[in-house]
This record gives sequence, structure tokens and C-alpha cells, in this order.
Amino acid sequence: MSKKIVNDTCPVARSLSVFGDTWSILILRDAHAGFTRFDQFRKRLNIAPTMLTKRLNDLVENGLLTKRRYSENPPREEYLLTQAGRDFLPILFVIADWGSKHVPHQNPDLMHQFYDDQQGTMIEPVVIDQQTGAKIGTRKISIHQGHYVQKLEKS
Amino acid sequence: MSKKIVNDTCPVARSLSVFGDTWSILILRDAHAGFTRFDQFRKRLNIAPTMLTKRLNDLVENGLLTKRRYSENPPREEYLLTQAGRDFLPILFVIADWGSKHVPHQNPDLMHQFYDDQQGTMIEPVVIDQQTGAKIGTRKISIHQGHYVQKLEKS
Repeated sequence: MSKKIVNDTCPVARSLSVFGDTWSILILRDAHAGFTRFDQFRKRLNIAPTMLTKRLNDLVENGLLTKRRYSENPPREEYLLTQAGRDFLPILFVIADWGSKHVPHQNPDLMHQFYDDQQGTMIEPVVIDQQTGAKIGTRKISIHQGHYVQKLEKS
Repeated sequence: MSKKIVNDTCPVARSLSVFGDTWSILILRDAHAGFTRFDQFRKRLNIAPTMLTKRLNDLVENGLLTKRRYSENPPREEYLLTQAGRDFLPILFVIADWGSKHVPHQNPDLMHQFYDDQQGTMIEPVVIDQQTGAKIGTRKISIHQGHYVQKLEKS
């Protein structure tokens, strides 16, 4: 974590300091889909090996992935999601939901779709405030920092 | 939108093609906090003007912001959220929530906090599946693409 981020008081900026680029998010997506090995990530993402090494090391250092040796000879390691990495799943779902709505494919039938495995219904992710039960964006929100209060624009 | 993305069938990747970098997300954050002008973004983000110009133009081109002239002489424009940009708010909240939990500040009192303005309670964002009412990550999910089905790792 850079010194700038150590002092940053915005939780969005703090998050982005550990996964704020496309490669990191796509690696986390594939880790959630069950992939664990360097070569799997490399082939799926078509990413340069040096870049992939750096991103995986950063995700390990920042606590989203953990390395586990699965073969001693030859030495081989796999990358598993930590609790922080597993907690990234809801972020993936809201990003996916936004993309389905606002960057639609010309042939929607080709798109990846997500289903509740037991009930068989398509997942419809929505972000609510647990306290009020209201969808985020439907009620006025204020930002507090010490004595400083600011109103958020309403959606 | 690049040709690669036009054909990409993953909604996460499609989203990231339009906001997959830290600057774009921080600009959207500040737009939601009510800032609209080039100089406001530049000062708050401490971003190089050429980089800011590029990111703002990309966000306009991709339909998250719209430009409006607010002064004719001298000519000055401001940047307003579109519906797609307003729909980004839940993403900001889940990113913020992850950061509060997993990249904690050494002095949590200094952090920005978000309150429901009417009820006065702190916002606790949670992502649920509207169909089942379950939190994302608590039930098994499968990915479908045509005839291809894959199970997601459970959190």
C-alpha cells in the first residue's frame, strides 16, 4: 500500500489502491470461476506473463489471493481466494449487472448469464441499504467526515 | 468501444472497457458528490490536465457523463451524470464497503462515512439477488452461456 493510500480517508480510493485496474479485476473474476493456476489465467486473459506475475503478486501482497504449493517436483503454485477475495464477489456482480444494462452485446444470447443454482432463476443483483431496506440511489445520502457533512446528488 | 470488447461475452469485461481504471472511477465518485467542472476534478484528484481531459472525454463518449455549456463567454463546459452514470452509484457503494472492511484506516474516525439523510443511520450496503432475496455469495451460482454451464466457487 503506497503512503498516499495509507492516509486516504475515502474508502473507494482505498479499495482502488488494491484492485483498481482491469487485469486485477479480471483475475479475481476468473478466481471466482474456480481457476487457480498461472497458465489458466494467462490463457483465459491473454495477458503477458510478466504482467500476470506482477498482478498476482500484488493481489497476494494485498491479501486477496493466497499462494499454495500444489506440486513439489516441479515446484508449482496455485492462487486461492482469501476471505477478502471472496468478499469481492458482490462487486463483480454489480459490475456485471451494469455492463449487461449499459454495454449490451448485439446478440444478448451469447452473453454469460448467472443463475441461482438451486432455484434456477437468473440472478438479479441489487444493492440495498440493510438499515432502511431501500435500494442505493433511491433516498438522499449524506457524506460525513468528522464535523464535515456533504449531501450526495440523488440518482 | 474497442473491437475486442464489442465481441466480449462477459458483462464484467464489457463494463471494465468503459470504466476499468482508477481515474475514471474516482471521477465518477466526485461527479456523484456533486462536482461538475474540470477544475474541480483536477484539484480534488490532483490529476494531470491531459489525463483528466482524456478520461472525461472517454466517459462522455461511453455515455456516463454528458457535457453542458454553462458559459458562452468565455466558453466553459460542465460534466453531468447520465442515467448510466447515475446507475454507477451502487458500484461505488460496494467498492467503498469492501475498502472499509479490508483496507481499514489506522484512524477509522477520519474515514468518510455515508448516512441515510432522512433516517440518520449509517448506510450498510449489501448486494442481494432480487429473485431469492439471498445475499450474493451465500448460495451456489452457475454461469450459463448457450449450452455451456459452469458452477461458481461458493464464497
